[in-house]
Amino acid sequence: MIIVTTAGITPEALDRIIEHVEAAGLRTHVSRGEQRTIVGCIGDEGALSEHGLTQLDGVERVMPVLKPYKIASREFSVGNTAIRLGDPADTVIGGRDVVVMAGPCSVEGREMMFDTARAVQQAGARLLRGGAFKPRSSPYAFQGMGEDGLKILADVRAETGMPIVTEVMDPRQVELVASYADVMQIGARNMQNFPLLSEVGKVQRPVLLKRGLSGTITELLMAAEYVLAQGNGDVMLCERGIRTYETATRNTMDVAAIPVLKRETHLPVIVDPSHAGGRAHLVTPLALAAVAAGADGLIVEVHPDPKCAKSDGEQSLEFSAFTQLMQQVQAVARAIGRECTWPSEVS
Amino acid sequence: MIIVTTAGITPEALDRIIEHVEAAGLRTHVSRGEQRTIVGCIGDEGALSEHGLTQLDGVERVMPVLKPYKIASREFSVGNTAIRLGDPADTVIGGRDVVVMAGPCSVEGREMMFDTARAVQQAGARLLRGGAFKPRSSPYAFQGMGEDGLKILADVRAETGMPIVTEVMDPRQVELVASYADVMQIGARNMQNFPLLSEVGKVQRPVLLKRGLSGTITELLMAAEYVLAQGNGDVMLCERGIRTYETATRNTMDVAAIPVLKRETHLPVIVDPSHAGGRAHLVTPLALAAVAAGADGLIVEVHPDPKCAKSDGEQSLEFSAFTQLMQQVQAVARAIGRECTWPSEVS
Amino acid sequence: MIIVTTAGITPEALDRIIEHVEAAGLRTHVSRGEQRTIVGCIGDEGALSEHGLTQLDGVERVMPVLKPYKIASREFSVGNTAIRLGDPADTVIGGRDVVVMAGPCSVEGREMMFDTARAVQQAGARLLRGGAFKPRSSPYAFQGMGEDGLKILADVRAETGMPIVTEVMDPRQVELVASYADVMQIGARNMQNFPLLSEVGKVQRPVLLKRGLSGTITELLMAAEYVLAQGNGDVMLCERGIRTYETATRNTMDVAAIPVLKRETHLPVIVDPSHAGGRAHLVTPLALAAVAAGADGLIVEVHPDPKCAKSDGEQSLEFSAFTQLMQQVQAVARAIGRECTWPSEVS
Amino acid sequence: MIIVTTAGITPEALDRIIEHVEAAGLRTHVSRGEQRTIVGCIGDEGALSEHGLTQLDGVERVMPVLKPYKIASREFSVGNTAIRLGDPADTVIGGRDVVVMAGPCSVEGREMMFDTARAVQQAGARLLRGGAFKPRSSPYAFQGMGEDGLKILADVRAETGMPIVTEVMDPRQVELVASYADVMQIGARNMQNFPLLSEVGKVQRPVLLKRGLSGTITELLMAAEYVLAQGNGDVMLCERGIRTYETATRNTMDVAAIPVLKRETHLPVIVDPSHAGGRAHLVTPLALAAVAAGADGLIVEVHPDPKCAKSDGEQSLEFSAFTQLMQQVQAVARAIGRECTWPSEVS
Repeated sequence: MIIVTTAGITPEALDRIIEHVEAAGLRTHVSRGEQRTIVGCIGDEGALSEHGLTQLDGVERVMPVLKPYKIASREFSVGNTAIRLGDPADTVIGGRDVVVMAGPCSVEGREMMFDTARAVQQAGARLLRGGAFKPRSSPYAFQGMGEDGLKILADVRAETGMPIVTEVMDPRQVELVASYADVMQIGARNMQNFPLLSEVGKVQRPVLLKRGLSGTITELLMAAEYVLAQGNGDVMLCERGIRTYETATRNTMDVAAIPVLKRETHLPVIVDPSHAGGRAHLVTPLALAAVAAGADGLIVEVHPDPKCAKSDGEQSLEFSAFTQLMQQVQAVARAIGRECTWPSEVS
Repeated sequence: MIIVTTAGITPEALDRIIEHVEAAGLRTHVSRGEQRTIVGCIGDEGALSEHGLTQLDGVERVMPVLKPYKIASREFSVGNTAIRLGDPADTVIGGRDVVVMAGPCSVEGREMMFDTARAVQQAGARLLRGGAFKPRSSPYAFQGMGEDGLKILADVRAETGMPIVTEVMDPRQVELVASYADVMQIGARNMQNFPLLSEVGKVQRPVLLKRGLSGTITELLMAAEYVLAQGNGDVMLCERGIRTYETATRNTMDVAAIPVLKRETHLPVIVDPSHAGGRAHLVTPLALAAVAAGADGLIVEVHPDPKCAKSDGEQSLEFSAFTQLMQQVQAVARAIGRECTWPSEVS
Repeated sequence: MIIVTTAGITPEALDRIIEHVEAAGLRTHVSRGEQRTIVGCIGDEGALSEHGLTQLDGVERVMPVLKPYKIASREFSVGNTAIRLGDPADTVIGGRDVVVMAGPCSVEGREMMFDTARAVQQAGARLLRGGAFKPRSSPYAFQGMGEDGLKILADVRAETGMPIVTEVMDPRQVELVASYADVMQIGARNMQNFPLLSEVGKVQRPVLLKRGLSGTITELLMAAEYVLAQGNGDVMLCERGIRTYETATRNTMDVAAIPVLKRETHLPVIVDPSHAGGRAHLVTPLALAAVAAGADGLIVEVHPDPKCAKSDGEQSLEFSAFTQLMQQVQAVARAIGRECTWPSEVS
Repeated sequence: MIIVTTAGITPEALDRIIEHVEAAGLRTHVSRGEQRTIVGCIGDEGALSEHGLTQLDGVERVMPVLKPYKIASREFSVGNTAIRLGDPADTVIGGRDVVVMAGPCSVEGREMMFDTARAVQQAGARLLRGGAFKPRSSPYAFQGMGEDGLKILADVRAETGMPIVTEVMDPRQVELVASYADVMQIGARNMQNFPLLSEVGKVQRPVLLKRGLSGTITELLMAAEYVLAQGNGDVMLCERGIRTYETATRNTMDVAAIPVLKRETHLPVIVDPSHAGGRAHLVTPLALAAVAAGADGLIVEVHPDPKCAKSDGEQSLEFSAFTQLMQQVQAVARAIGRECTWPSEVS
């Protein structure tokens, strides 16, 4: 930690700052510039109340030197984390292939899930998404089918072989959701729901952690750290658009978060172009942008009849549009030296 | 709901839009302007997937007419909600008096809580704040004393008579926290933690609901609606600063949210100048601004020794600074025709 | 324009609203819903003070129906605007080819400009960028070489044949800059400098109009409208990142602005990945994302020795990194059915 | 400047960093921590390209130590700048009195200006505001009366004695506007219009400098520095709301900017509650909040008939509402130990 003192600090005030730091067990290193004296603090920053320091006389600013995340950082792990899914476990997230997850916002019924699963699998999706527990801003809106929805998802997996990604919102439901899902999704509104993060950290199921509407990249990594610190190392980070002043789109997709995250962490980075744009015609351009910028995967909303969807109809793709998206995703992935393959394509 | 169609829409497309709306049980009302045709939808907007409509051919935009909150709205209740606390219940939040809650960010021990309680009560605070369960962005930071902290809070209340406000973060702890606290605080990061909101809605304890870092005023009211819809009508809304691009302050206090909320809802509005500013020297100006703009109460962080606080030391006031704040709050409250009184002052 | 009235509006208040609208020469159309009465206003919206309407008794909200831009809109022009540059005019912006402009932030001297021009031309850039007049947030920072810089740019064009793009900041310098430049750049800070926009609108030189740090897409189109309304139809719009709460990058590149603009307007869309990211390692991923999302061109900062650049060194690419960027841009352009070609490649 | 190096930097890379810094004429001071080595740079930071440094191998981050503004800073001037206006010069901005400026958004005609001037003067305003040159986001909207408007303002001043504040948008008009106005207003969209700032810096007329829609507090001070550096020391800073994601208000008034600015600079701080809120019913609460937080003055839009105003009708106050505002402003000013007086009150 570095302490910048005020101009013309008295020797007494400087002594008290040094005393305060050393009392916490750190060493100090004083550097006198032409206009400011700087106090470097050497040792365990955690032992010091960084924020309290600013209340000492003569302290102008306190600047931390180290990044707050540890297990999530590149310094912790040199190679990339790759997450294997499916039975056989031939879907790898965080490898050379760009992996696409697709399906409706909500599980609305058995037939629509089977139809959608078959369509997106045929088009190239490797995982099926679908919400059984839905976070809705209104208490009067459709809240999801609950465990009945999870059962439908499990039945679809049994038939198609597609691993399932579905949201968990409540620490009391982690065990239940983990018993059905292949990947547990933590929604944007729960990025800093720390009890929930700790709970999914205790279960051996991969986690798809979405960035909060106003979450910084550092906070997203700290949220992942909550999961990792509990022993669950299979965390994917998901950029899904942040909240800005612009209202032409539902959110603003922070495409730069992809290369920033790839540099800071070894965890896979997924992008959700559907929530980022919030309009169907934006989904494909945003998906392609994400792949071009280095995303390891996409999660896309697809619905048999978007105009009648119970949630997120505005941003859901029809089957045909999703098929076109996959063709273009594959082309862009190859253009940057990656791949996007699927079994039905091979046969 | 109002549907704006695209320029030059065909009669067939217009017919399909009307059909779609009427199939959901609403009536339509077509208005042909010089450049656009508008379709008004009359009836239960909830029966229609507003967002799905935009996927119909010929739809340019869909504009909702009604506000999404009901119980929280001024149309639901003409008078203001006033929440009575204490034994005897002589502290009224939402009445003429500006009510101040004060105390440390975290409960750090018995002695510091008793010292702080006596000091802030003497200075004019009516409620004591203190966190036993702490949401921390790092899993490695102090997470609060848990139930031991709640017990200390209850002991302080027993001696001082001050009602207690403390945070609940986990739906599994609502019952526990409600058994100790007079007011359950929902933190900013949990504004849209819907299972938690529903759970506190089922308990008959007042709730202090903080606005999320990027929560809109409408979303804050919808979060309150989750609590109200479960039957708990005692909800206070708390402005605590929103996240913007400005980094000179921890957050940006949205002081205009106070008069906007007072016009939209009958619920009391509290302001947290400590988190809004994030620096001790900003707390008093922001507190005074909040009172001048019409806040019904304040929640302020006070610590016996801010430079050693385990959390939020940067923004905590010393006892003497808090005493001065109270004097000025009282003066400003009177200047706008309100009051700010406390028992020790009277005697 | 649509007027939503308050619940329970009196017939008298409704009459006064209708009177007010009709006095401005518009017709009204009243639609009574179950909870709200709506007044549609038919005719010239401009004749009515939209904002003043909200001060009439019984008005809850006023919602405009039409978009405010005209010449910039797709309704005005069916085909895309293509801007031809160079002598011969074989560089086309807004056609099938993705066109790349490159060069240093500032013109720092003759030699560095010739070196850079040759390097970026060889790598595939079609235009040369370089600032002679520099907007700097500090009055004490290097402000550019002024007309001497323009002369160097003209000399480089004479030798290489590359058209020049350079910034104009002051309405008094428009004539001067237009006499040297092929494309006049309006910087982000001047997006709503209306006298400057009008002035460049009167000159027959293409304009590269950058989006302001907090400019909405609608405001960007309205700024273009200022230029177009003066008779200069050759305007390119440039996304260069917007200001958000995220500090990991200099700005947040709003990649969705590309498909939104391509749908709203016939004008070409350029992206500046250098200012958007603000760090050299982000430039290539952001450039590829922009191309994948449909950008018509890129403007990239390249410097012979970025660590010694007089401005924007942090985000400037070395020659070798730019050459790699061009190879990847070409591959991604082809993957989505476009092209990115350059003469040296052909020969 | 402080350079944080990457973990495990090689001695060679460290040497090259030191060499690079010393070649620019600064001294270095190396501090080896447990996890990071820090290089302090002592001397003239301006001689070093801070941003270029990040491109050197082994540099993780560069942190500036000094603030970029000089003449605007408290270190430059111990006392507060007080600006005297009027003939006799008995209106003092930056002293004990809170000074209120009021008038319509635009000068729309002679009679409405005389009416408004008399009404706001009677109510307690000390300066008259009114725009003759109007920055409008649409080229098709009313652009102001130009010099005819300035003449009306001068005639009103001749009769009422009220000093005039009016906007200047174009460096070519600075001389003209200065010949009529007592205070030249720089609008929010021009906060970083550097040629305009330099031009008003050369004229001996006070300047009211508005914060840009996304201007940071530091950038606002740097914009003031442009004016101050040219020799014009009479600059007032104006908070007028910033752009955030919240759409319930036109802008978000950053009330904390007031105490932050009062601590950083000796220049007076004015607040514009009209543009900040954008709705008439918000103007008074925001004005009172600004005064309570320490503002030196207010600038308020008042119109004889807001519903027919040619611009900003939504946020303009009627005369009676302004009179009430002034009574409350006076009461709040006194509550915090300041004053708000006016001649008509005394007599």
